[in-house]
Amino acid sequence: MTAFSLDPRLERDSAFACDLPLCQVRVFNDERWPWLVLVPRVAGASELTDLTAKQRATLMEEIVLADEAVLALGATFGRLPEKTNVATLGNVVAQLHVHVIGRRSDDPAWPRPVWNEGTPRPYGEEISLAIGAVCSAVGATVAA
Amino acid sequence: MTAFSLDPRLERDSAFACDLPLCQVRVFNDERWPWLVLVPRVAGASELTDLTAKQRATLMEEIVLADEAVLALGATFGRLPEKTNVATLGNVVAQLHVHVIGRRSDDPAWPRPVWNEGTPRPYGEEISLAIGAVCSAVGATVAA
Repeated sequence: MTAFSLDPRLERDSAFACDLPLCQVRVFNDERWPWLVLVPRVAGASELTDLTAKQRATLMEEIVLADEAVLALGATFGRLPEKTNVATLGNVVAQLHVHVIGRRSDDPAWPRPVWNEGTPRPYGEEISLAIGAVCSAVGATVAA
Repeated sequence: MTAFSLDPRLERDSAFACDLPLCQVRVFNDERWPWLVLVPRVAGASELTDLTAKQRATLMEEIVLADEAVLALGATFGRLPEKTNVATLGNVVAQLHVHVIGRRSDDPAWPRPVWNEGTPRPYGEEISLAIGAVCSAVGATVAA
């Protein structure tokens, strides 16, 4: 059995926030949207069907936690989301990962999906603030 | 309590296939991709958080069934998908609905998401074949 390891592209595009029982929670490094990525720590998984039914049920509840965290993240930066987009695509990065994205009708892509929209705007030093908001919302401790 | 009713845009863009315990299963009327839409029969729901935890667990397992049906649908038309995209966006149609879409590396949008890509190509008379493949795959009876 191979150990779980994070895809280098996910590693590059997002920052580790905290671990939930199944997933690593990562902040997508683009402050245009409060955007989290959940990565189940299951080696070799690329589709929902690569998880057990129990893992999928856990994933669904971690998506709900991430939804709350996305609201908190948006609020922290003064832009409370009006709705949430949830998606697992994986056409570019095969490793199973779930996007949880807060949307507003005045955001730069609305009503289109956010992928391939313009150029990411990294958080810079405020990434710590973002990570703190997310970890606090899901009840996790911020990594040292 | 308001009764469940289908959004007119979902009604227009997709065809009813069958009912699962929670969701209506619909074939998106665009033969460029084997594409299903699951619509939970829960009045007023627009976010996953509008469902109960039990409904969400059911939804996750119906997504897995829909994944199998998408593979069957693609195979029926000689284009077995290589992977599945699953998403609930709802920026245009507020009613909670989940897209389950079979993707191939030679499809017209790959590796981009499918939304807002070119012009839909309706099934025409072959919609019956599509509906039959889907209902058979999820173990449901085709509506008369």
